[in-house]
Amino acid sequence: MAEKEEPIRFGILGCAEIARKLSRAIFLAPHAVLVAIGSRSLDKARRFIADNALALVRAVGSYDAVLDDPTIDAVYVPLPTGLHLTWAVAAAERRKHVLLEKPAALCVSDLDRILEACASNGVQFMDGSMWVHHPRTAKMREMISDSKRFGRVKTIHSSSSFLATPLFLENNIRVKPDLDSLGALGDLGWYCIGSILWAVDYQLPNTVTALPSLHLNQAGIILSCASSFHWEDGKVATFHCSFLSHVSMDLSVQGASGSLRVHDLAIPFREDSALFEFNCRAEFAELHIGWTRKPEEVVVASGLPQEALMVEEFAKQVQLMRSSRCPPTAKWPDISRKTQLVLDAVKRSIETEFKPVFL
Amino acid sequence: MAEKEEPIRFGILGCAEIARKLSRAIFLAPHAVLVAIGSRSLDKARRFIADNALALVRAVGSYDAVLDDPTIDAVYVPLPTGLHLTWAVAAAERRKHVLLEKPAALCVSDLDRILEACASNGVQFMDGSMWVHHPRTAKMREMISDSKRFGRVKTIHSSSSFLATPLFLENNIRVKPDLDSLGALGDLGWYCIGSILWAVDYQLPNTVTALPSLHLNQAGIILSCASSFHWEDGKVATFHCSFLSHVSMDLSVQGASGSLRVHDLAIPFREDSALFEFNCRAEFAELHIGWTRKPEEVVVASGLPQEALMVEEFAKQVQLMRSSRCPPTAKWPDISRKTQLVLDAVKRSIETEFKPVFL
Repeated sequence: MAEKEEPIRFGILGCAEIARKLSRAIFLAPHAVLVAIGSRSLDKARRFIADNALALVRAVGSYDAVLDDPTIDAVYVPLPTGLHLTWAVAAAERRKHVLLEKPAALCVSDLDRILEACASNGVQFMDGSMWVHHPRTAKMREMISDSKRFGRVKTIHSSSSFLATPLFLENNIRVKPDLDSLGALGDLGWYCIGSILWAVDYQLPNTVTALPSLHLNQAGIILSCASSFHWEDGKVATFHCSFLSHVSMDLSVQGASGSLRVHDLAIPFREDSALFEFNCRAEFAELHIGWTRKPEEVVVASGLPQEALMVEEFAKQVQLMRSSRCPPTAKWPDISRKTQLVLDAVKRSIETEFKPVFL
Repeated sequence: MAEKEEPIRFGILGCAEIARKLSRAIFLAPHAVLVAIGSRSLDKARRFIADNALALVRAVGSYDAVLDDPTIDAVYVPLPTGLHLTWAVAAAERRKHVLLEKPAALCVSDLDRILEACASNGVQFMDGSMWVHHPRTAKMREMISDSKRFGRVKTIHSSSSFLATPLFLENNIRVKPDLDSLGALGDLGWYCIGSILWAVDYQLPNTVTALPSLHLNQAGIILSCASSFHWEDGKVATFHCSFLSHVSMDLSVQGASGSLRVHDLAIPFREDSALFEFNCRAEFAELHIGWTRKPEEVVVASGLPQEALMVEEFAKQVQLMRSSRCPPTAKWPDISRKTQLVLDAVKRSIETEFKPVFL
């Protein structure tokens, strides 16, 4: 039992901005502990540790040195997407469990190589989609799964955007072809696709058709795009993601007899609680001068920030594998792979002048 | 001045369910008075008057008799869309101002004949889109026109739906090819298209592409459909309308630096006030663990129901024409025509297997 209680020891590869958020999350997660920050520059790792007051965390001057450290159980990898394949595979081969920042990979074939490396080395894989771990998400699932109240899902719309600064559009890795060639589709579209798939319980669409509304930078990186998904039963979903629009993180799911809306899906407005709007069996009132029911706000408290809940879920899974000698769960790799598959299809549709891509 | 103060005398052609709402609206509008209900059945007109306690309103046994009544200034026409051309033209030719229920016509060429008849006879035309006249709509316009706060419109999403009963899907005129052959696209898509055009200040899109997600009944009438619109500057809009989904009336407009959302556009939840959500210049908070600004709810009181405000706007326009001998305003016909033009394009895209239609 002692072994089971031992917290999972994390290393982080790289000092990306989001690594600050995750080092806090690892600190907050009861079953995880951060032991090392690896950077190609030892100075940078040291500065990161000092700036973020990470007591007892070691600065390491290379990613390899983190992976070679036998006291480290798991790595969080917030490197640019173009480096995911190399370092996630390297981590898996050195038997480190892999928590990989989203988008998981540049394409599904890269992701498959990562997932195969994780599977063959018996390590857990999870991508860094935090919102999935928020208790609000579980509550929303409960509401839309209630077929009597919600009915079958009919249509979904999702958006994810923020207004990038001129500096971001000039210099950020997310608009650089050699680092994050998926641009806004990878950074923000990943959320849209993930939330749409979530809403249909991960049933893949039959066709993916990007909409002929696309903004590329001079290097050909997507700054904004939109797409539609179609299922054989008539369900339709649309999304829009953009670095050029006011911040949004909407998910709207319409069922036959219910509807759900959330406006801060990927990053809730505040940390301690989050809400969504739910309505069901509403009709127009007599004379059509109102509605019989207004949407209600369902508020869900969160004991820990969603990113800490993600780390905790990951850590507990690793503990379970350790204590019960069970294999990694396929749940998280499967979700990542489906998201990547649809993301690839959006990209292919864009590249083929918005032709439908059949899955 | 006495002439100016005289209320506008309305007749209604037909006893449609929505005529009940409009007779109440005419009663509530200070500058309008309802004088006659025309029906092909005198008994039906009498029953309508009795059922709705319309004191001093005359029952008339034919539409023609209403149009021939020299004491009637204007008609409200809630007949099935397939009858709009005949009766709106007949009304205009008999110098009655025409308040025509939406969708205005089956196609833009029909609408053009109606508008030409109105113009050449010097009568005012307006379609029955009530939400445009709600003070909330004016307040929303003010907010999104503020280019410093909202920035340029980037993307719009709209939905309009309700879950029709089996009886509706069997018998309602809105699913009958000889009466309302536009189905859900006409009844609900009219709102989606109108609200999207409203959001871009009636700038027509360059292309309209219906999404390959379509539900037809056995007679080929649209029960649900979706479409996307594209503008040369990269703006994109999507909508979904359906008789097969929980009630929704969403409009979401994202600008470069602001966003606006309303969930009860066409029929507000309640009559006396309505709200929308507005946010601007929000960013992610430090560490991306929240937002710097949450959307605020902007509540707008309404002294009269929106349909009474519509009647009042129409009546005051007719009074102005009478007192100042000015021609009809082109504002309302122009909005109707643009809405119809885009609706036609959606229909054509559906009919051509979802090919883009260029406007």
